[in-house]
Amino acid sequence: MNDPLFLGIDGGATKCRARIVDAGGRTIGEGHAGTANPRYGLQAAFDEILAATRGAIAEAGLPDSAIATLHAGLGLAGTGQRHDREAVLAHPHPFATVSLETDAHVACLGAYAGGDGAILILGTGSCGWAIVGGKPHRVGGLGFPIADHGSGAWLGLMTIRRALLAHDGVEPETPLSRAVIARFDDDTDAAVAWQSDAQPKDYAALAPLVFRHAAAGDPLANELLQSTADDAARLAGALLAVGTKRLSLMGGLAPHIRAWLPAPIQETIVEPEGDALDGAILLARQNMDKVDQT
Amino acid sequence: MNDPLFLGIDGGATKCRARIVDAGGRTIGEGHAGTANPRYGLQAAFDEILAATRGAIAEAGLPDSAIATLHAGLGLAGTGQRHDREAVLAHPHPFATVSLETDAHVACLGAYAGGDGAILILGTGSCGWAIVGGKPHRVGGLGFPIADHGSGAWLGLMTIRRALLAHDGVEPETPLSRAVIARFDDDTDAAVAWQSDAQPKDYAALAPLVFRHAAAGDPLANELLQSTADDAARLAGALLAVGTKRLSLMGGLAPHIRAWLPAPIQETIVEPEGDALDGAILLARQNMDKVDQT
Repeated sequence: MNDPLFLGIDGGATKCRARIVDAGGRTIGEGHAGTANPRYGLQAAFDEILAATRGAIAEAGLPDSAIATLHAGLGLAGTGQRHDREAVLAHPHPFATVSLETDAHVACLGAYAGGDGAILILGTGSCGWAIVGGKPHRVGGLGFPIADHGSGAWLGLMTIRRALLAHDGVEPETPLSRAVIARFDDDTDAAVAWQSDAQPKDYAALAPLVFRHAAAGDPLANELLQSTADDAARLAGALLAVGTKRLSLMGGLAPHIRAWLPAPIQETIVEPEGDALDGAILLARQNMDKVDQT
Repeated sequence: MNDPLFLGIDGGATKCRARIVDAGGRTIGEGHAGTANPRYGLQAAFDEILAATRGAIAEAGLPDSAIATLHAGLGLAGTGQRHDREAVLAHPHPFATVSLETDAHVACLGAYAGGDGAILILGTGSCGWAIVGGKPHRVGGLGFPIADHGSGAWLGLMTIRRALLAHDGVEPETPLSRAVIARFDDDTDAAVAWQSDAQPKDYAALAPLVFRHAAAGDPLANELLQSTADDAARLAGALLAVGTKRLSLMGGLAPHIRAWLPAPIQETIVEPEGDALDGAILLARQNMDKVDQT
């Protein structure tokens, strides 16, 4: 009997990555493909997962048929809800075994190699996740606009709201507020038209503008970043209260927000030991161990 | 030659009302129909306008052919943008003349019989409008979620966000926060599913729950109402700064928010002299006067 091979899949909002490791934990191949969020189409998500996997198989120099020997750990965005999770697990797949958790869960598994700890993802969306004593805890992360505190999308929305208030004379204009209105060619009609189709990523696209203006001392930009950090700190506080003393920050906003967090939160911040793919592979191993014990 | 007849149309977000007055300003008929927001279909909007008008013609005891003699003033939601306004004015109509302004503009015309003054509409959405020296000024009112400060929809969204934070242990639960989560059968999955299709009116539907809990002393409800009033007060301040000393509050939230406004704003509040239909009729009269002068 051959040693088992493990496949980790990290399927986030914008791309899907795959990694194959051998029984000793050595990476033998990686691949990537487009977004694999099952909420935007289950078959499409599996197509991307398989495309990323085939890339990893090719890089590993394995035959195509090796896919049937892989123990797959899937960390997928959009699977926090039972309905979505059940749909993924019911879908046909070519792997030896499949385990499934959210992208946040595998990121947390990877960050602490399966040990206790918390992560706070501050990207287009946001999500807090902790694993303590093997048990997962979610804080926030239910999406835009009802539960995305500290996220880029919420920061962008708040930025537009404040810029429009300044434009209407409700509060003082600043270089940032003028730059936001300039993006709409100084025409509120354009902002209204834009709004009707705006997605979270469209709001989040304003975040870099806020960072640049904050660095230049813009008072509105500084206030918006502090507010984002305050929201993030509240999520972090709830995560640490679950019973862990270490926190990893992830996502595109993290490096910009970190310095704005209160000192007691900053002191808990650690670098993750591994990435979400490491976590997905650990998930696959844990699952196989469970199967072996039964 | 017969004396002219004037038709006022108030086409808001949920219904369309029509009123016909004679040259002396006496109401001779009223009618109503469904929503006439041209943004959701120009022909459908005109169908509702004509249905409401036919109702008013029938009540007035006029022949159907009288529609061709009416000087119509239309106050329509969704016509704040040039593109929408041009589309309405280019559409075929059976009236003698047509004038068009937003529903906020005709409400302000009606509130002050064409004189100077400001209105602040706090309903599902929000909009501030002032007319000073015949010149209109808009503050806010560009829609959910980018510019609906002090609105029911924004209040509802903030309520859900805070309730979910409380549910996740980020802040203390209150009777209001528990009541919100109970609406989703204590299941965050249901909140996520609801969110994907939620419209402004769905968020605004939570406002009465906040009012009830505020009356019972719920700290979260009180904080949310105060925040809504603070937003409203900022819009009001910008309106008064345009150069008027009187403000009318309108919309379903107004009676619940009024007591939370700062005293200097409360002191400016007056009852409107007339309604939006009065304003729409005044618009039609003003337009005919202009035509007569050319």
